[in-house]
Amino acid sequence: MITVEVALDARSYPIHIGAGLLGHAPLLVPALSEPRVAVVTDTNVAPLYLERVAGALRKAGIAVTEIVIPAGESSKDWPTLNRVIECLLASGCDRATTIVALGGGVVGDLAGFAAATYQRGVPLVQMPTTLLAQVDSAVGGKTAINHPLGKNMIGAFYQPRLVVTDTAALDTLPDRELRAGLAEVIKHGLLGDAAFLAWLEENIDKLKGREPLALAHAIRRCCEMKAAIVREDERESGIRAHLNLGHTFGHAIETGLGYGNWLHGEAVAAGMVMAAELSHRLGHLAARDVDRVRALLGRAGLPVVGPALGPGAYLELMRRDKKAVAGDIRFVLLKHLGEAFVGAAADEAVRGALNACTRDL
Amino acid sequence: MITVEVALDARSYPIHIGAGLLGHAPLLVPALSEPRVAVVTDTNVAPLYLERVAGALRKAGIAVTEIVIPAGESSKDWPTLNRVIECLLASGCDRATTIVALGGGVVGDLAGFAAATYQRGVPLVQMPTTLLAQVDSAVGGKTAINHPLGKNMIGAFYQPRLVVTDTAALDTLPDRELRAGLAEVIKHGLLGDAAFLAWLEENIDKLKGREPLALAHAIRRCCEMKAAIVREDERESGIRAHLNLGHTFGHAIETGLGYGNWLHGEAVAAGMVMAAELSHRLGHLAARDVDRVRALLGRAGLPVVGPALGPGAYLELMRRDKKAVAGDIRFVLLKHLGEAFVGAAADEAVRGALNACTRDL
Repeated sequence: MITVEVALDARSYPIHIGAGLLGHAPLLVPALSEPRVAVVTDTNVAPLYLERVAGALRKAGIAVTEIVIPAGESSKDWPTLNRVIECLLASGCDRATTIVALGGGVVGDLAGFAAATYQRGVPLVQMPTTLLAQVDSAVGGKTAINHPLGKNMIGAFYQPRLVVTDTAALDTLPDRELRAGLAEVIKHGLLGDAAFLAWLEENIDKLKGREPLALAHAIRRCCEMKAAIVREDERESGIRAHLNLGHTFGHAIETGLGYGNWLHGEAVAAGMVMAAELSHRLGHLAARDVDRVRALLGRAGLPVVGPALGPGAYLELMRRDKKAVAGDIRFVLLKHLGEAFVGAAADEAVRGALNACTRDL
Repeated sequence: MITVEVALDARSYPIHIGAGLLGHAPLLVPALSEPRVAVVTDTNVAPLYLERVAGALRKAGIAVTEIVIPAGESSKDWPTLNRVIECLLASGCDRATTIVALGGGVVGDLAGFAAATYQRGVPLVQMPTTLLAQVDSAVGGKTAINHPLGKNMIGAFYQPRLVVTDTAALDTLPDRELRAGLAEVIKHGLLGDAAFLAWLEENIDKLKGREPLALAHAIRRCCEMKAAIVREDERESGIRAHLNLGHTFGHAIETGLGYGNWLHGEAVAAGMVMAAELSHRLGHLAARDVDRVRALLGRAGLPVVGPALGPGAYLELMRRDKKAVAGDIRFVLLKHLGEAFVGAAADEAVRGALNACTRDL
């Protein structure tokens, strides 16, 4: 087991990474305020791992409430949150009950927001079971639900007490979901040190082939990088915004197509190509580096062009993005590979990049 | 103008108290991140003060979005919150837009929770216009909406950047609301120093008569006491719970009768008598001090008996209170006047206190 520490003073917490951790109650029990948890998971994950987690906890004397939501991004909404809150109330969960988010990004975001707001906040443990959640969404405290007018529009920064990352859970992850997770891994490579990007180019086939050592290394490096960024800028007033590389375009794709048609990681992959292309058109990233981004994502089996919604529709959706300031879209751009910055761009350049990176699907 | 400071390190903020502050834009403008605010208020307050606040801000070059919700506790719900979020999105409010909560406790709690969760949190200014909000709910960062199964069940601790308390706004407050606010003022007297309690007994008629100097003194003392408690225990893991004196019984009254039948302050008044009676039955508070509590609340024109829901119904409602731990009701009790503690009580004693302090209404 490897442990990565997220240092946030009184709210610091460990990320434990290893194979088989889901059934290992002693990791969790000392973090509980009272011997009671509510495990929130979805209809995909419940048949695979719920009994393993709940059974181990019950054997350790912990009372467990099980709450299973429908799988899919469309569950990240108010009615589902309200059902979770109702289950918590009906089973007598109180302010000392710990909510355990067992699943991917949707479960983590929804259950995390439930923990942030139930009775003004209860303890939270993240147990990510997808690669995307393990390298990104379960780390750093972002929680949210979607609004019909925009993704993640209602949410909170709320740190967990503990993240338990079981790499063996990836064995059952569908190929498409694994690839979507690789998009966020590659994002860390584009933002971080050159060595990790080179390692990814070297090892992308091993990652696609689920080689355990390669996956564990990638997860660890991503968690270390993300922990360092979150420590510096927990509430995204500065450098944390770099983690949104590809997300402004990506959210427009997700919202434009309707949530759940493309996986988040797929939209971010196409969005990173757009961001790289835009960076190039603005005179930053070299053309060969745009090709390098496109090639690595393509080798990971990810989309490198977006749907042709039309540049006008993209611009309209991005102006409504919550990272926009007074209607100005804030793009995360690449100065070169490994160094990002946040900047504006003329609509003309954005239209050009969009035309170069979209087609009718 | 008097200023009371709430000291919370990086999240410290001032409470400005004075007559005529609502129309004084220079208090607000320096606290804004961008020259844009969304003023959330209700149908009672809008005709009285919205133009004064919004007009002054517009004159100072600030863009103002006005959001008016129906007056009353029943607006502290999800559909109303969702309407507020929709207005914020539709008018292009972003992460740097400040939400101004102009109104009483309902507006403050709802708009505060909107600020806590819109795009994971935007700046908040509280402008309380009722006595209850000025001495209690606008100070200390509690925000929430109600759930059909319980009051304030979904919420967040979220501190404002600034509280602007205009004592002249109390001129238009209905008598019943003024009295409800006096319940929270008297609560501070019961929890705090003996001098303030004696001052209240001396000056309760002046307060009922809205004498400006008496009101300003009471508001200031309550804010000072509350600021000291919040500084010590922001998230209510200890001493802040004392501020819930009368609230466990009071919430049961509000939930049992349906939100909005009794004002919050009225329910808290009857609840404080119940808490005093229970404290006496458990061997703490002297009988003459229970009489003193009852007399002062009675002179303030507040209910000193609760509705006869039946002790069983009270107990059931209180077990579901979010301050309960593993089904054990946590009562705020009085050792003597001026000193509270949190403790449990045998059902028998609670039933006795309830029988002594309720009647068919």
